[in-house]
Amino acid sequence: MYYHDTIIRPRYAETDQMGVIHHANYFLYFECGRSDMMRDHGYSYKKLEDAGIIMPLIDVACKYKKPVLYDEEIIIRTSIDYIKGIRIAFKYEVLRRSDLELLAVGQTVHGFVNKELKPVKYSKLDESFRNILEKLK
Amino acid sequence: MYYHDTIIRPRYAETDQMGVIHHANYFLYFECGRSDMMRDHGYSYKKLEDAGIIMPLIDVACKYKKPVLYDEEIIIRTSIDYIKGIRIAFKYEVLRRSDLELLAVGQTVHGFVNKELKPVKYSKLDESFRNILEKLK
Amino acid sequence: MYYHDTIIRPRYAETDQMGVIHHANYFLYFECGRSDMMRDHGYSYKKLEDAGIIMPLIDVACKYKKPVLYDEEIIIRTSIDYIKGIRIAFKYEVLRRSDLELLAVGQTVHGFVNKELKPVKYSKLDESFRNILEKLK
Amino acid sequence: MYYHDTIIRPRYAETDQMGVIHHANYFLYFECGRSDMMRDHGYSYKKLEDAGIIMPLIDVACKYKKPVLYDEEIIIRTSIDYIKGIRIAFKYEVLRRSDLELLAVGQTVHGFVNKELKPVKYSKLDESFRNILEKLK
Repeated sequence: MYYHDTIIRPRYAETDQMGVIHHANYFLYFECGRSDMMRDHGYSYKKLEDAGIIMPLIDVACKYKKPVLYDEEIIIRTSIDYIKGIRIAFKYEVLRRSDLELLAVGQTVHGFVNKELKPVKYSKLDESFRNILEKLK
Repeated sequence: MYYHDTIIRPRYAETDQMGVIHHANYFLYFECGRSDMMRDHGYSYKKLEDAGIIMPLIDVACKYKKPVLYDEEIIIRTSIDYIKGIRIAFKYEVLRRSDLELLAVGQTVHGFVNKELKPVKYSKLDESFRNILEKLK
Repeated sequence: MYYHDTIIRPRYAETDQMGVIHHANYFLYFECGRSDMMRDHGYSYKKLEDAGIIMPLIDVACKYKKPVLYDEEIIIRTSIDYIKGIRIAFKYEVLRRSDLELLAVGQTVHGFVNKELKPVKYSKLDESFRNILEKLK
Repeated sequence: MYYHDTIIRPRYAETDQMGVIHHANYFLYFECGRSDMMRDHGYSYKKLEDAGIIMPLIDVACKYKKPVLYDEEIIIRTSIDYIKGIRIAFKYEVLRRSDLELLAVGQTVHGFVNKELKPVKYSKLDESFRNILEKLK
Protein backbone atom coordinates (compact mmCIF):
# COMPACT_ATOMS: atom_id res chain seq x y z
CA MET A 1 0.00 0.00 0.00
CA TYR A 2 1.13 3.51 -0.82
CA TYR A 3 2.17 5.84 1.97
CA HIS A 4 3.70 9.28 2.15
CA ASP A 5 6.25 10.46 4.72
CA THR A 6 6.41 14.02 6.01
CA ILE A 7 9.16 15.03 8.41
CA ILE A 8 8.10 17.39 11.18
CA ARG A 9 10.20 19.12 13.79
CA PRO A 10 7.82 19.99 16.62
CA ARG A 11 7.99 23.59 17.73
CA TYR A 12 8.85 24.81 21.21
CA ALA A 13 5.44 26.50 21.38
CA GLU A 14 3.86 23.07 20.92
CA THR A 15 5.30 21.70 24.15
CA ASP A 16 3.32 22.01 27.38
CA GLN A 17 4.38 22.15 30.99
CA MET A 18 4.38 18.35 31.21
CA GLY A 19 7.45 18.66 28.97
CA VAL A 20 5.92 16.89 25.97
CA ILE A 21 4.20 17.91 22.74
CA HIS A 22 0.58 18.74 23.56
CA HIS A 23 -1.82 16.15 22.15
CA ALA A 24 -3.95 18.56 20.08
CA ASN A 25 -0.97 19.40 17.86
CA TYR A 26 -0.96 15.90 16.37
CA PHE A 27 -4.02 16.87 14.34
CA LEU A 28 -2.05 19.77 12.88
CA TYR A 29 0.70 17.32 11.94
CA PHE A 30 -1.85 14.98 10.34
CA GLU A 31 -3.14 17.91 8.29
CA CYS A 32 0.44 18.60 7.15
CA GLY A 33 0.79 14.92 6.27
CA ARG A 34 -2.30 14.65 4.09
CA SER A 35 -1.90 18.05 2.39
CA ASP A 36 1.74 17.19 1.70
CA MET A 37 0.72 13.88 0.17
CA MET A 38 -1.86 15.56 -2.03
CA ARG A 39 0.51 18.35 -3.07
CA ASP A 40 3.21 15.87 -4.03
CA HIS A 41 0.70 14.31 -6.39
CA GLY A 42 -0.29 17.59 -7.96
CA TYR A 43 -3.32 18.35 -5.82
CA SER A 44 -2.72 21.09 -3.30
CA TYR A 45 -5.60 22.11 -1.03
CA LYS A 46 -5.71 25.32 -3.02
CA LYS A 47 -6.17 23.43 -6.29
CA LEU A 48 -8.87 21.31 -4.66
CA GLU A 49 -10.70 24.40 -3.43
CA ASP A 50 -10.34 25.90 -6.92
CA ALA A 51 -11.86 22.70 -8.36
CA GLY A 52 -14.79 23.22 -5.99
CA ILE A 53 -13.98 20.26 -3.76
CA ILE A 54 -13.96 20.72 -0.01
CA MET A 55 -13.21 17.91 2.40
CA PRO A 56 -14.54 18.91 5.83
CA LEU A 57 -13.73 16.73 8.82
CA ILE A 58 -16.40 14.28 9.93
CA ASP A 59 -14.50 12.20 12.42
CA VAL A 60 -11.00 12.20 13.90
CA ALA A 61 -9.18 9.96 16.35
CA CYS A 62 -5.70 9.47 17.76
CA LYS A 63 -4.09 6.87 20.01
CA TYR A 64 -1.00 7.99 21.90
CA LYS A 65 1.60 5.36 22.73
CA LYS A 66 4.69 7.36 23.75
CA PRO A 67 5.14 11.11 24.08
CA VAL A 68 6.81 13.20 21.40
CA LEU A 69 9.55 15.36 22.87
CA TYR A 70 10.63 18.79 21.72
CA ASP A 71 14.10 17.82 20.66
CA GLU A 72 13.20 15.05 18.25
CA GLU A 73 12.01 14.99 14.68
CA ILE A 74 9.04 12.84 13.79
CA ILE A 75 7.73 11.28 10.61
CA ILE A 76 4.05 11.48 9.76
CA ARG A 77 3.34 8.44 7.59
CA THR A 78 0.09 9.15 5.76
CA SER A 79 -1.99 6.72 3.75
CA ILE A 80 -5.54 6.43 2.48
CA ASP A 81 -7.54 4.00 4.57
CA TYR A 82 -10.66 3.83 2.44
CA ILE A 83 -12.88 5.76 0.04
CA LYS A 84 -16.57 4.95 0.19
CA GLY A 85 -19.57 6.84 -1.15
CA ILE A 86 -19.11 10.42 -0.05
CA ARG A 87 -16.23 9.76 2.35
CA ILE A 88 -12.49 9.40 2.42
CA ALA A 89 -10.45 8.22 5.41
CA PHE A 90 -6.76 8.82 6.00
CA LYS A 91 -4.50 6.94 8.40
CA TYR A 92 -1.41 8.35 10.06
CA GLU A 93 1.50 6.84 11.91
CA VAL A 94 3.70 9.07 14.04
CA LEU A 95 7.23 7.65 14.10
CA ARG A 96 10.30 8.95 15.90
CA ARG A 97 12.66 9.75 13.07
CA SER A 98 15.84 8.53 14.74
CA ASP A 99 14.72 4.94 15.37
CA LEU A 100 11.30 4.69 13.66
CA GLU A 101 9.59 3.80 16.93
CA LEU A 102 5.82 4.13 16.59
CA LEU A 103 4.62 6.90 18.92
CA ALA A 104 1.00 7.37 17.88
CA VAL A 105 -1.56 6.43 15.28
CA GLY A 106 -4.42 8.54 13.99
CA GLN A 107 -7.30 8.63 11.57
CA THR A 108 -9.33 11.39 9.95
CA VAL A 109 -12.53 10.90 7.98
CA HIS A 110 -13.65 13.59 5.55
CA GLY A 111 -16.71 14.17 3.44
CA PHE A 112 -16.59 15.31 -0.16
CA VAL A 113 -18.71 18.43 -0.51
CA ASN A 114 -19.04 21.14 -3.14
CA LYS A 115 -18.85 24.87 -2.55
CA GLU A 116 -22.49 24.91 -1.48
CA LEU A 117 -21.46 22.33 1.15
CA LYS A 118 -23.66 19.68 -0.51
CA PRO A 119 -22.25 16.12 -0.33
CA VAL A 120 -20.76 14.85 -3.60
CA LYS A 121 -20.25 11.18 -4.41
CA TYR A 122 -16.70 10.09 -5.06
CA SER A 123 -17.73 8.86 -8.50
CA LYS A 124 -18.87 12.40 -9.41
CA LEU A 125 -15.61 14.09 -8.46
CA ASP A 126 -13.19 15.63 -10.93
CA GLU A 127 -11.61 12.75 -12.86
CA SER A 128 -8.00 13.92 -12.52
CA PHE A 129 -8.47 14.03 -8.77
CA ARG A 130 -9.95 10.53 -8.67
CA ASN A 131 -7.11 9.22 -10.80
CA ILE A 132 -4.66 10.39 -8.18
CA LEU A 133 -6.64 8.95 -5.30
CA GLU A 134 -6.85 5.61 -7.12
CA LYS A 135 -3.05 5.50 -7.30
CA LEU A 136 -2.73 6.38 -3.62
CA LYS A 137 -5.23 3.85 -2.31
CA MET B 1 -25.74 11.54 35.25
CA TYR B 2 -23.65 14.50 36.30
CA TYR B 3 -22.35 16.88 33.67
CA HIS B 4 -20.55 20.19 33.73
CA ASP B 5 -21.11 23.07 31.29
CA THR B 6 -18.34 25.42 30.20
CA ILE B 7 -19.16 28.34 27.94
CA ILE B 8 -16.56 29.08 25.28
CA ARG B 9 -16.41 31.93 22.83
CA PRO B 10 -14.18 30.73 19.99
CA ARG B 11 -11.40 33.12 19.08
CA TYR B 12 -10.86 34.73 15.72
CA ALA B 13 -7.44 33.05 15.54
CA GLU B 14 -9.22 29.70 15.77
CA THR B 15 -11.09 30.18 12.50
CA ASP B 16 -9.55 28.98 9.26
CA GLN B 17 -10.00 30.13 5.69
CA MET B 18 -12.99 27.83 5.24
CA GLY B 19 -14.68 30.32 7.60
CA VAL B 20 -15.22 27.86 10.45
CA ILE B 21 -13.46 26.95 13.68
CA HIS B 22 -10.58 24.63 12.81
CA HIS B 23 -11.21 21.08 14.01
CA ALA B 24 -8.06 20.73 16.14
CA ASN B 25 -9.28 23.48 18.47
CA TYR B 26 -12.09 21.29 19.77
CA PHE B 27 -9.52 19.34 21.77
CA LEU B 28 -8.47 22.58 23.44
CA TYR B 29 -12.10 23.23 24.32
CA PHE B 30 -12.46 19.70 25.71
CA GLU B 31 -9.39 20.34 27.87
CA CYS B 32 -11.05 23.53 29.15
CA GLY B 33 -14.20 21.52 29.85
CA ARG B 34 -12.61 18.79 31.92
CA SER B 35 -10.20 21.07 33.81
CA ASP B 36 -13.10 23.40 34.55
CA MET B 37 -15.15 20.51 35.88
CA MET B 38 -12.30 19.36 38.10
CA ARG B 39 -11.56 22.88 39.34
CA ASP B 40 -15.18 23.46 40.24
CA HIS B 41 -14.97 20.39 42.45
CA GLY B 42 -11.80 21.52 44.17
CA TYR B 43 -9.30 19.68 41.98
CA SER B 44 -7.43 21.97 39.64
CA TYR B 45 -4.82 20.42 37.35
CA LYS B 46 -2.25 22.17 39.49
CA LYS B 47 -3.55 20.49 42.64
CA LEU B 48 -3.55 17.16 40.84
CA GLU B 49 0.04 17.64 39.73
CA ASP B 50 0.93 18.67 43.30
CA ALA B 51 -0.70 15.44 44.52
CA GLY B 52 1.54 13.56 42.10
CA ILE B 53 -1.23 12.53 39.74
CA ILE B 54 -0.79 13.02 36.03
CA MET B 55 -3.42 12.04 33.48
CA PRO B 56 -1.73 11.78 30.09
CA LEU B 57 -3.86 11.24 27.01
CA ILE B 58 -4.15 7.70 25.70
CA ASP B 59 -6.89 8.09 23.15
CA VAL B 60 -8.99 10.93 21.76
CA ALA B 61 -11.80 11.16 19.24
CA CYS B 62 -14.27 13.69 17.90
CA LYS B 63 -17.25 13.52 15.55
CA TYR B 64 -18.20 16.77 13.82
CA LYS B 65 -21.84 17.28 12.92
CA LYS B 66 -22.10 20.98 12.09
CA PRO B 67 -19.39 23.63 11.98
CA VAL B 68 -18.81 26.08 14.82
CA LEU B 69 -18.74 29.65 13.54
CA TYR B 70 -16.71 32.53 14.91
CA ASP B 71 -19.62 34.62 16.01
CA GLU B 72 -21.34 32.10 18.25
CA GLU B 73 -20.76 30.91 21.77
CA ILE B 74 -20.67 27.21 22.46
CA ILE B 75 -21.19 25.06 25.50
CA ILE B 76 -18.81 22.22 26.26
CA ARG B 77 -20.87 19.69 28.25
CA THR B 78 -18.37 17.44 30.02
CA SER B 79 -19.07 14.22 31.84
CA ILE B 80 -17.18 11.15 33.00
CA ASP B 81 -17.85 8.20 30.71
CA TYR B 82 -16.12 5.50 32.77
CA ILE B 83 -13.30 4.81 35.22
CA LYS B 84 -11.69 1.41 34.90
CA GLY B 85 -8.40 0.10 36.27
CA ILE B 86 -5.82 2.71 35.36
CA ARG B 87 -8.03 4.71 33.01
CA ILE B 88 -10.59 7.46 33.02
CA ALA B 89 -12.69 8.50 30.04
CA PHE B 90 -14.45 11.83 29.59
CA LYS B 91 -17.24 12.60 27.14
CA TYR B 92 -17.98 16.00 25.65
CA GLU B 93 -20.88 17.49 23.80
CA VAL B 94 -20.41 20.71 21.86
CA LEU B 95 -23.67 22.65 21.81
CA ARG B 96 -24.47 25.96 20.17
CA ARG B 97 -25.34 28.17 23.11
CA SER B 98 -28.21 30.03 21.48
CA ASP B 99 -30.35 27.01 20.60
CA LEU B 100 -28.52 24.05 22.19
CA GLU B 101 -28.10 22.33 18.84
CA LEU B 102 -25.55 19.52 19.09
CA LEU B 103 -22.56 20.39 16.89
CA ALA B 104 -19.99 17.75 17.84
CA VAL B 105 -19.26 14.99 20.34
CA GLY B 106 -15.88 13.95 21.65
CA GLN B 107 -14.13 11.58 23.99
CA THR B 108 -10.75 11.56 25.71
CA VAL B 109 -9.23 8.62 27.56
CA HIS B 110 -6.48 9.24 30.10
CA GLY B 111 -4.20 7.05 32.14
CA PHE B 112 -3.48 7.65 35.81
CA VAL B 113 0.28 7.85 36.27
CA ASN B 114 2.55 9.08 39.03
CA LYS B 115 5.41 11.53 38.65
CA GLU B 116 7.70 8.74 37.45
CA LEU B 117 5.08 8.12 34.74
CA LYS B 118 4.30 4.68 36.19
CA PRO B 119 0.62 3.65 35.86
CA VAL B 120 -1.39 3.88 39.09
CA LYS B 121 -4.62 2.02 39.73
CA TYR B 122 -7.67 4.13 40.43
CA SER B 123 -8.10 2.36 43.77
CA LYS B 124 -4.62 3.57 44.84
CA LEU B 125 -5.25 7.23 44.07
CA ASP B 126 -5.55 9.95 46.66
CA GLU B 127 -8.86 9.36 48.49
CA SER B 128 -10.11 12.94 48.31
CA PHE B 129 -9.63 12.84 44.55
CA ARG B 130 -11.51 9.55 44.24
CA ASN B 131 -14.35 10.90 46.37
CA ILE B 132 -14.84 13.67 43.88
CA LEU B 133 -14.70 11.39 40.87
CA GLU B 134 -17.26 9.10 42.50
CA LYS B 135 -19.66 12.03 42.78
CA LEU B 136 -19.09 13.02 39.17
CA LYS B 137 -19.51 9.58 37.65
CA MET C 1 -9.70 57.26 29.75
CA TYR C 2 -11.99 54.40 28.91
CA TYR C 3 -10.75 50.83 29.21
CA HIS C 4 -12.35 47.42 28.96
CA ASP C 5 -11.45 44.39 31.09
CA THR C 6 -11.59 40.84 29.79
CA ILE C 7 -10.87 37.97 32.14
CA ILE C 8 -8.89 35.11 30.64
CA ARG C 9 -8.00 31.76 32.12
CA PRO C 10 -4.97 30.56 30.15
CA ARG C 11 -5.30 27.03 28.82
CA TYR C 12 -3.03 24.12 29.61
CA ALA C 13 -2.20 23.84 25.90
CA GLU C 14 -0.86 27.39 26.08
CA THR C 15 1.89 26.50 28.55
CA ASP C 16 5.29 25.42 27.27
CA GLN C 17 7.97 23.24 28.79
CA MET C 18 9.48 26.23 30.61
CA GLY C 19 6.30 25.99 32.70
CA VAL C 20 4.88 29.35 31.66
CA ILE C 21 2.37 30.62 29.12
CA HIS C 22 4.11 30.80 25.75
CA HIS C 23 4.65 34.39 24.63
CA ALA C 24 2.83 34.12 21.28
CA ASN C 25 -0.48 33.45 23.06
CA TYR C 26 -0.57 36.98 24.45
CA PHE C 27 -1.53 38.19 20.98
CA LEU C 28 -4.52 35.85 21.06
CA TYR C 29 -5.50 37.33 24.40
CA PHE C 30 -5.15 40.86 23.00
CA GLU C 31 -7.45 39.87 20.14
CA CYS C 32 -9.97 38.62 22.70
CA GLY C 33 -9.62 41.92 24.56
CA ARG C 34 -10.28 44.21 21.62
CA SER C 35 -13.05 42.09 20.06
CA ASP C 36 -14.69 41.86 23.49
CA MET C 37 -14.52 45.63 23.89
CA MET C 38 -16.06 46.17 20.46
CA ARG C 39 -18.78 43.56 21.02
CA ASP C 40 -19.74 45.11 24.35
CA HIS C 41 -20.34 48.35 22.47
CA GLY C 42 -22.45 46.73 19.81
CA TYR C 43 -19.75 46.16 17.20
CA SER C 44 -18.71 42.55 16.91
CA TYR C 45 -16.02 41.65 14.37
CA LYS C 46 -18.80 39.99 12.41
CA LYS C 47 -20.82 43.21 12.29
CA LEU C 48 -17.71 45.10 11.26
CA GLU C 49 -17.02 42.64 8.46
CA ASP C 50 -20.70 42.91 7.43
CA ALA C 51 -20.29 46.69 7.34
CA GLY C 52 -17.35 46.17 4.98
CA ILE C 53 -14.70 47.28 7.47
CA ILE C 54 -11.62 45.15 7.95
CA MET C 55 -8.86 46.05 10.35
CA PRO C 56 -5.73 44.11 9.36
CA LEU C 57 -2.72 44.22 11.63
CA ILE C 58 0.06 46.61 10.67
CA ASP C 59 2.23 46.49 13.73
CA VAL C 60 2.25 44.61 17.04
CA ALA C 61 4.46 44.67 20.11
CA CYS C 62 4.58 43.24 23.60
CA LYS C 63 6.82 43.74 26.63
CA TYR C 64 6.93 40.87 29.11
CA LYS C 65 7.58 41.75 32.74
CA LYS C 66 6.67 38.57 34.66
CA PRO C 67 5.51 35.21 33.36
CA VAL C 68 1.86 34.19 33.33
CA LEU C 69 1.39 30.79 34.97
CA TYR C 70 -1.19 28.16 34.10
CA ASP C 71 -3.05 28.28 37.34
CA GLU C 72 -3.86 31.97 37.43
CA GLU C 73 -6.47 34.09 35.77
CA ILE C 74 -5.42 37.28 34.04
CA ILE C 75 -7.15 40.47 33.05
CA ILE C 76 -6.61 41.96 29.61
CA ARG C 77 -7.20 45.68 30.03
CA THR C 78 -7.83 47.09 26.56
CA SER C 79 -7.98 50.72 25.53
CA ILE C 80 -7.68 52.77 22.36
CA ASP C 81 -4.31 54.45 22.17
CA TYR C 82 -4.95 56.67 19.13
CA ILE C 83 -6.88 56.95 15.88
CA LYS C 84 -5.10 58.79 13.11
CA GLY C 85 -5.82 58.91 9.38
CA ILE C 86 -6.25 55.33 8.31
CA ARG C 87 -5.00 53.78 11.54
CA ILE C 88 -6.19 52.74 14.96
CA ALA C 89 -3.95 51.62 17.82
CA PHE C 90 -5.01 49.60 20.84
CA LYS C 91 -3.12 49.23 24.10
CA TYR C 92 -3.29 46.25 26.43
CA GLU C 93 -2.25 45.63 29.98
CA VAL C 94 -1.97 42.06 31.23
CA LEU C 95 -2.72 41.97 34.96
CA ARG C 96 -2.73 39.02 37.34
CA ARG C 97 -6.33 38.88 38.48
CA SER C 98 -5.65 38.03 42.12
CA ASP C 99 -3.45 41.03 42.95
CA LEU C 100 -3.59 43.19 39.78
CA GLU C 101 0.18 42.99 39.33
CA LEU C 102 1.15 44.17 35.84
CA LEU C 103 2.66 41.22 33.94
CA ALA C 104 2.94 42.56 30.39
CA VAL C 105 1.94 45.44 28.14
CA GLY C 106 1.15 45.29 24.46
CA GLN C 107 0.10 47.33 21.48
CA THR C 108 -1.51 46.54 18.14
CA VAL C 109 -1.87 48.96 15.24
CA HIS C 110 -4.49 48.27 12.57
CA GLY C 111 -5.38 49.82 9.25
CA PHE C 112 -8.94 50.54 8.18
CA VAL C 113 -9.54 48.87 4.82
CA ASN C 114 -12.61 48.01 2.80
CA LYS C 115 -13.45 44.62 1.32
CA GLU C 116 -11.20 45.33 -1.66
CA LEU C 117 -8.42 45.88 0.91
CA LYS C 118 -8.14 49.57 -0.05
CA PRO C 119 -7.29 51.88 2.86
CA VAL C 120 -10.22 53.94 4.17
CA LYS C 121 -9.86 57.14 6.17
CA TYR C 122 -11.36 57.12 9.64
CA SER C 123 -13.54 60.09 8.68
CA LYS C 124 -15.12 58.02 5.87
CA LEU C 125 -16.08 55.08 8.08
CA ASP C 126 -19.62 54.14 9.00
CA GLU C 127 -20.89 56.84 11.37
CA SER C 128 -22.32 54.48 14.01
CA PHE C 129 -18.93 52.81 14.23
CA ARG C 130 -17.12 56.12 14.61
CA ASN C 131 -19.56 57.21 17.29
CA ILE C 132 -18.58 54.20 19.34
CA LEU C 133 -14.87 54.70 18.82
CA GLU C 134 -15.22 58.34 19.87
CA LYS C 135 -16.73 57.22 23.17
CA LEU C 136 -13.97 54.69 23.72
CA LYS C 137 -11.04 56.98 22.97
CA MET D 1 26.39 40.22 8.48
CA TYR D 2 25.48 36.62 9.08
CA TYR D 3 21.91 35.44 8.62
CA HIS D 4 20.17 32.09 8.64
CA ASP D 5 17.29 31.09 6.37
CA THR D 6 14.52 28.74 7.47
CA ILE D 7 11.86 27.69 4.98
CA ILE D 8 8.35 27.44 6.38
CA ARG D 9 5.19 26.20 4.75
CA PRO D 10 2.33 27.76 6.73
CA ARG D 11 -0.29 25.28 7.85
CA TYR D 12 -3.96 25.35 6.96
CA ALA D 13 -4.78 25.64 10.66
CA GLU D 14 -2.77 28.87 10.73
CA THR D 15 -5.09 30.65 8.29
CA ASP D 16 -8.05 32.62 9.59
CA GLN D 17 -11.37 33.50 8.04
CA MET D 18 -9.87 36.62 6.42
CA GLY D 19 -8.07 34.06 4.24
CA VAL D 20 -4.56 34.92 5.44
CA ILE D 21 -2.09 33.55 7.97
CA HIS D 22 -3.12 34.86 11.39
CA HIS D 23 -0.64 37.41 12.73
CA ALA D 24 0.19 35.61 15.99
CA ASN D 25 1.71 32.68 14.09
CA TYR D 26 4.61 34.83 12.91
CA PHE D 27 6.07 34.60 16.41
CA LEU D 28 6.02 30.82 16.12
CA TYR D 29 7.89 31.13 12.84
CA PHE D 30 10.43 33.48 14.44
CA GLU D 31 10.97 30.89 17.17
CA CYS D 32 11.60 28.27 14.47
CA GLY D 33 14.04 30.65 12.80
CA ARG D 34 16.18 31.35 15.85
CA SER D 35 16.15 27.79 17.21
CA ASP D 36 17.06 26.53 13.73
CA MET D 37 19.95 28.99 13.55
CA MET D 38 21.22 27.91 16.96
CA ARG D 39 20.80 24.20 16.18
CA ASP D 40 22.73 24.54 12.93
CA HIS D 41 25.61 25.95 14.96
CA GLY D 42 25.56 23.15 17.47
CA TYR D 43 23.38 24.79 20.11
CA SER D 44 19.89 23.38 20.23
CA TYR D 45 17.47 24.83 22.79
CA LYS D 46 17.79 21.51 24.59
CA LYS D 47 21.59 21.86 24.82
CA LEU D 48 21.15 25.44 26.05
CA GLU D 49 18.72 24.31 28.73
CA ASP D 50 21.14 21.52 29.68
CA ALA D 51 23.89 24.14 29.99
CA GLY D 52 21.63 26.04 32.37
CA ILE D 53 20.95 28.93 30.03
CA ILE D 54 17.38 30.10 29.51
CA MET D 55 16.48 32.98 27.25
CA PRO D 56 13.01 34.22 28.21
CA LEU D 57 11.31 36.80 26.04
CA ILE D 58 11.49 40.42 27.21
CA ASP D 59 10.15 42.23 24.20
CA VAL D 60 8.75 41.29 20.80
CA ALA D 61 7.53 43.24 17.80
CA CYS D 62 6.42 42.65 14.24
CA LYS D 63 5.52 44.91 11.31
CA TYR D 64 3.25 43.38 8.68
CA LYS D 65 3.63 44.65 5.10
CA LYS D 66 1.74 42.10 3.00
CA PRO D 67 -0.25 39.07 4.08
CA VAL D 68 1.17 35.55 3.95
CA LEU D 69 -1.20 33.22 2.12
CA TYR D 70 -1.76 29.53 2.77
CA ASP D 71 -0.44 28.30 -0.52
CA GLU D 72 2.98 29.91 -0.42
CA GLU D 73 6.22 29.02 1.28
CA ILE D 74 8.06 31.70 3.20
CA ILE D 75 11.62 32.20 4.32
CA ILE D 76 12.38 33.35 7.84
CA ARG D 77 15.70 35.17 7.61
CA THR D 78 17.10 35.33 11.14
CA SER D 79 20.05 37.35 12.37
CA ILE D 80 21.40 38.66 15.65
CA ASP D 81 20.67 42.35 16.04
CA TYR D 82 22.74 43.00 19.16
CA ILE D 83 24.07 41.49 22.38
CA LYS D 84 24.37 43.86 25.30
CA GLY D 85 24.79 43.15 29.01
CA ILE D 86 22.18 40.57 29.86
CA ARG D 87 20.27 40.79 26.59
CA ILE D 88 20.28 39.41 23.09
CA ALA D 89 18.10 40.66 20.23
CA PHE D 90 17.21 38.77 17.08
CA LYS D 91 15.87 40.24 13.85
CA TYR D 92 13.67 38.41 11.36
CA GLU D 93 12.63 39.07 7.81
CA VAL D 94 9.67 37.19 6.37
CA LEU D 95 10.16 36.74 2.62
CA ARG D 96 7.88 35.08 0.09
CA ARG D 97 10.00 32.19 -1.16
CA SER D 98 9.00 32.43 -4.82
CA ASP D 99 10.08 36.04 -5.42
CA LEU D 100 11.78 37.07 -2.15
CA GLU D 101 9.31 39.90 -1.60
CA LEU D 102 9.56 41.19 1.97
CA LEU D 103 6.26 40.50 3.76
CA ALA D 104 7.07 41.33 7.38
CA VAL D 105 9.89 42.16 9.75
CA GLY D 106 10.16 41.23 13.40
CA GLN D 107 12.33 41.46 16.46
CA THR D 108 12.60 39.53 19.70
CA VAL D 109 14.66 40.55 22.72
CA HIS D 110 15.62 37.91 25.28
CA GLY D 111 17.31 37.97 28.65
CA PHE D 112 20.02 35.52 29.65
CA VAL D 113 18.99 33.83 32.90
CA ASN D 114 20.13 30.76 34.78
CA LYS D 115 17.91 27.96 36.04
CA GLU D 116 17.02 30.00 39.11
CA LEU D 117 15.82 32.67 36.65
CA LYS D 118 18.55 35.09 37.83
CA PRO D 119 19.95 37.33 35.06
CA VAL D 120 23.40 36.33 33.81
CA LYS D 121 25.76 38.67 31.99
CA TYR D 122 26.76 37.65 28.49
CA SER D 123 30.41 37.67 29.54
CA LYS D 124 29.66 35.01 32.19
CA LEU D 125 27.96 32.60 29.80
CA ASP D 126 29.42 29.27 28.74
CA GLU D 127 32.39 30.04 26.48
CA SER D 128 31.47 27.62 23.69
CA PHE D 129 28.08 29.30 23.48
CA ARG D 130 29.61 32.79 23.33
CA ASN D 131 32.03 31.67 20.63
CA ILE D 132 29.11 30.71 18.45
CA LEU D 133 27.22 33.94 19.11
CA GLU D 134 30.36 35.95 18.24
CA LYS D 135 30.48 34.26 14.85
CA LEU D 136 26.79 34.92 14.24
CA LYS D 137 26.79 38.60 15.20
